Amino acid sequence: MMKEKVPAIQEDYADDYAWCYGCGRLNKEGLHFKTSWNEDQTITVYTPREEHIAIPGFVYGGLIASLIDCHGTGSASLALHRKNGHEPGDGIEPPRFVTASLHVDFLKPTPHDTELKAVGTIEEIHPKKWKIHTEVFAGDQCCAKGEVTAAVMPKTFTAK
Amino acid sequence: MMKEKVPAIQEDYADDYAWCYGCGRLNKEGLHFKTSWNEDQTITVYTPREEHIAIPGFVYGGLIASLIDCHGTGSASLALHRKNGHEPGDGIEPPRFVTASLHVDFLKPTPHDTELKAVGTIEEIHPKKWKIHTEVFAGDQCCAKGEVTAAVMPKTFTAK
Repeated sequence: MMKEKVPAIQEDYADDYAWCYGCGRLNKEGLHFKTSWNEDQTITVYTPREEHIAIPGFVYGGLIASLIDCHGTGSASLALHRKNGHEPGDGIEPPRFVTASLHVDFLKPTPHDTELKAVGTIEEIHPKKWKIHTEVFAGDQCCAKGEVTAAVMPKTFTAK
Repeated sequence: MMKEKVPAIQEDYADDYAWCYGCGRLNKEGLHFKTSWNEDQTITVYTPREEHIAIPGFVYGGLIASLIDCHGTGSASLALHRKNGHEPGDGIEPPRFVTASLHVDFLKPTPHDTELKAVGTIEEIHPKKWKIHTEVFAGDQCCAKGEVTAAVMPKTFTAK
């Protein structure tokens, strides 16, 4: 069972790394995906906006890809943070990941009238490189499957 | 050389299929990607919005994935339309594709201060299933590579 109010990893990203359109808490126009532990899996719940359609009634694939992408980097951050002995909300800045590759299989049209739930299973493939296998559910239906390879953000990927 | 004002395939989608957040001309909040022939390749040019950042100065990966996705379905539509003897702007409704799978390799951080150019090479793998290999350029730099498998929209994928 998922507990209420499990802290999301994105709440703990350093301010400099909290601007992502998908999951940055400081991006005013952004989607504000929030990723948390749910036992040994990770979860991101999101209700698409009215305009996030492919055709009326069905969710736009790019939104699903974006959800899987940020859910992946957030999940990798949760996992390495835990490996380092930390949990979201404990006041320690978590490692920030970037996406090296993203794969999405769209299994069926995703209905637009309900919240989406991305559920991730995490695999360490290198201390700085993690793979996240994600299933996206609308209600009980798995509508898309994804795989993200996430790498610790290199120092070259900085704005300053 | 790319000619000026080559018609985009999205201008010819039937009204019922022109609502996509990524490329639908009728989606007021959408991104309005437009995909055209450029000799035997396809091209979609897009300038990210201010908010489409991963961190300040660099484009959000989900936007790049969305660009590759709609560029892929648009390219497949262009290709099958041409195979059927038609070109955008000739008044014939083109076939509408959906994405079966999407893969993106993020090769390097994508600068946010310039337009992006998605260039597609199309491969027919079945009369109703096409693969599009895409490179996304910021200036002269290829920042991401993608692959979309697009299928003619099944009749079950309808809003009514």
